[in-house]
Parts: sequence; C-alpha cells; structure tokens
Amino acid sequence: MTNSITVVKLGGTEGVDFSAIAQDAAKMIAEGQKLVLVHGGSSEANALGEAVGKPPRFVTSPSGYTSRYTNRETLEVFAMAVNGKVNTFLVEQLQMLGVNALGLSGVDGGLLKAKRKSAIRIVENGKKKMLRDDYTGKINDVNADLLNTLLDAGYVPVVAPMAMSEKGETLNVDADRAAAEVAAALDADTLLLLTAVPGLMREFPDESTMIKEIPQAGIEKAIEYAEGRMKKKVLGAQEALNGGVKQVIIADGRVENPISNALAGNGTVIG
Amino acid sequence: MTNSITVVKLGGTEGVDFSAIAQDAAKMIAEGQKLVLVHGGSSEANALGEAVGKPPRFVTSPSGYTSRYTNRETLEVFAMAVNGKVNTFLVEQLQMLGVNALGLSGVDGGLLKAKRKSAIRIVENGKKKMLRDDYTGKINDVNADLLNTLLDAGYVPVVAPMAMSEKGETLNVDADRAAAEVAAALDADTLLLLTAVPGLMREFPDESTMIKEIPQAGIEKAIEYAEGRMKKKVLGAQEALNGGVKQVIIADGRVENPISNALAGNGTVIG
Repeated sequence: MTNSITVVKLGGTEGVDFSAIAQDAAKMIAEGQKLVLVHGGSSEANALGEAVGKPPRFVTSPSGYTSRYTNRETLEVFAMAVNGKVNTFLVEQLQMLGVNALGLSGVDGGLLKAKRKSAIRIVENGKKKMLRDDYTGKINDVNADLLNTLLDAGYVPVVAPMAMSEKGETLNVDADRAAAEVAAALDADTLLLLTAVPGLMREFPDESTMIKEIPQAGIEKAIEYAEGRMKKKVLGAQEALNGGVKQVIIADGRVENPISNALAGNGTVIG
Repeated sequence: MTNSITVVKLGGTEGVDFSAIAQDAAKMIAEGQKLVLVHGGSSEANALGEAVGKPPRFVTSPSGYTSRYTNRETLEVFAMAVNGKVNTFLVEQLQMLGVNALGLSGVDGGLLKAKRKSAIRIVENGKKKMLRDDYTGKINDVNADLLNTLLDAGYVPVVAPMAMSEKGETLNVDADRAAAEVAAALDADTLLLLTAVPGLMREFPDESTMIKEIPQAGIEKAIEYAEGRMKKKVLGAQEALNGGVKQVIIADGRVENPISNALAGNGTVIG
C-alpha cells in the first residue's frame, strides 16, 4: 500500500489497447496503487465528425505544433465522441473489472481551467493566418481538491480532455498536456504517457533509435527530435517535471500490461 | 439557508428551455438551496441517431409503456448525445452562470445501479414479441454517498440517465424514474418534473383539465389518465413518494423561472 499517485494518459490513437490498460490498471488498484487516468479520443472524434458530415480540420502553429481546429460545431462533435463515448465506455470497462471509476471532463466542477485561445495563429500553404472562433485553451489551473476528494473516497478519476474557460465555456485541450497538469497538481510520482510507439526516437520512425533516458536538462534537445504529436508529449513531460512530478515515461500502449511494463522502465524515461 | 434538497428533472423534449431552468437554478443555489439536476436527452439522441444512420426505435410494453430500444450500437449513440452533448453543455451553461456544476452519468462511481432487462417483452402490430440484446434497466440502488460528498463540497450534481448493471455494463434508463430514485435516496423534500406541458391533464391535451393536486392515494387513478410519456412521470412520482420524498410536482419547463414557478404550486402537485 503506497500513497503515491500515478497519472496514466491513454492515447486516443488507433492501436492503443484500452482493454489491456484497463486490466493492468485494475490489478494495480487492487494492490493499493492510486491511479488517475486521462484519455484522448482523436480517432473517435474524427470518425464521428466524418459520420455527421463535419470532418476534422487540423492546423499547424508557426512553431510547428499541430492541433485540432475547434469551432462551436466541432466542439460538440468532440464532446460527444470524447466525453460521451470514450469516457463513458472506459469507465464501463473499468467498472466491469471491479474498479470504481468515475468519469469527469475538465468542465465538471471546474476540474481543468484554461485560458481560451479565441484566435490562433496558423501556417497554411506557407502563409500565416489567424483563425477565430476557436474553442481550445491552455490549462492554467487544476482543481486538485476535487480529485483528492474522489481518490480519498475510493473512486478512480477518469478525465476527458476538455477544460473550462474563465467564462465557463467548454474548451478542447490537448490530452497529453492535460495529463501533465493533473500530474503536477497532484504531486504525482509518475506520469505515464502511453502511445502507439515504444518511446521517443532519435530518428523517427526507426525504433532502434529509441532514447532510454532523458535527464531533465536534456528536454529542450528532445523537443527537437520529436515529430508531430510527440512534440506535445515531450512538452507535457517538461511541464510535469517543472511542476514537481518525479518522472515521466513515454511508453508503448499496445503491449500486454502496458502500465507495469512502462513502470519497469520500458520506454523513454524522462527526469 | 436550508438543508433541504430539491431534485429537478429537465425534459429532453423539444420546447423545454434549459437556459431558463439553468438561470432559475443559479438564482436558487445562490440563495443557499441545494439542487440536484437530472436531465433527459431523447430529442438529441434521436437527432444524432438520424445523423449517423442509426435512427431510434421505440417499443411498447404489454402494459402500455413506451421506451427506446437500445442495443449496443444505439447505446453508443445514446451515450454520445445524452452524456457527451446534453450533460456537458448543461454543465457549461451552469458554469457560465457561476454554478459549480459537475456532470455524472449513473455509471460514474456506480451512481445508479440497475437490473438489466436483457430481454424485453413488446407488442408490435398487436403481436407479443421478445427483444434481446437490450441495454436498458430498472434502477435498484443509488450511491447517495457520492451525491452527498459532492453536495457537501459545494458541487451541483448534474446527472445523465444512464445506469450500471450488476456486471458494470452501461444501461439506458428512464430519466424521470432516475430522478425519482435520486430524490428518494437523498430524502429530497421535492421532486420537480419539468416538461413541455403545464401538468397532468384529465383529458390530454386539453390544458383546462389539468389536475392541480393529487393525494398519494390517488396516484393509481392518475396513472390511468396519463398518456404516453406522462405515464412514466406519474410512475416516477409514485416511486419517489414511496421512497419518502414529501412532494412531486409535474410542471411546465417552457416558462420563465420554471423552478420557482413550479415550487409556487403551478403544476400538478402530487403527495
């Protein structure tokens, strides 16, 4: 029985096995480990968007980060897919394994407060543009009291990556960075970012170039290696470590026992 | 400042004004009233089902109750619409009014436990049939501790009508009866069922025949007057009163200040 907290981020990418993660989580929780899960849901949001005739649009910032453009219409699609489907059925999977999971989005009880970026700068066909009516944000406050109240009462929080603006508006936020902020707010020992690759590679996608360990001082360099979505994971790792989390592990979510496997050091251990 | 709890059910039918209900709720909460909201979402679930090519199917039981047939596919549609959209954006509306709302479905933390009706008897074209693979249920336990923990910590629970089976499966449950079970479990003073009519009519749809008061002993008779969806509201009222709730009011959700209006006695007061 330990009082340390591990925050696990489950990727929304295809290939990541939620059922293996849920089973591993159930085993660890039964052994007394405190877990908080944060999930993505990109592929579900894309699929629902296509099905209802509102396909997703991805934009790239001048500094090279890719994100989902979210206006009010696509925010609804995102909420339905990520909060309605992924969250509900992940909670169901855990409940079926005897885990008293409880799903929340960041709007619930002001769990994740964020500064809304109502206008974002993007680069499209080499040209800089401004996009307005965007419902995304950067988290600046986590209601740790709410999570601690639930953990103390025996619940396992399962968090969907939506946040609340200063005005109370629902925002789409990056799930890796949401997990990082949650881990920092809870003084978690470990933040696990489970994804569809074995870790950060020096030369993506050559898995033989996977980096085993990155000291905190080496993160800036690592952000340069990172491609696409991986950039946000490394950025999230940096935010988590700056917030007091002891270690961040980027690891494979497609294997058996993905949580225990990662905690055994399989993956890129940062910090 | 009172310690009594009022449970408000907001209909998912078109015409019911969630924003007027949210504003009225915010005013009452600011005055110290403890509220728990339970919502429906039929029209949103129907719309999403149509949009993704999985239109809803309604079935009638031999005793004349109508309900939504929910297989695994339509359960996902229901979860996306009701838990993902209606719940998330009702919480948002309340947060924008300064209410610290927190959305839950009955699967979260085992809030609503139900017995699954995996096979249901229906009447179709005058013939009795059995339907299997149904994911609906009848609530038999409410986790009142969870609601009380949240209320004591200052949150306003907003409950989506989904429950959890004995095995942990997600089920679609009737929102009126979910609200009744929640009210009974919390020893609420009042259960308000806000809908798109002014109350129970002796001769539907003639509003001049609205019944102002029904004593608890008169409920069996009232179930006979009730048509369609109203039958479940009266049944819910009966369940709530049997569970110790002091009064149930079926009232108009389409007016200004719908909660205060109903509490002032406008509607059908039962019990």
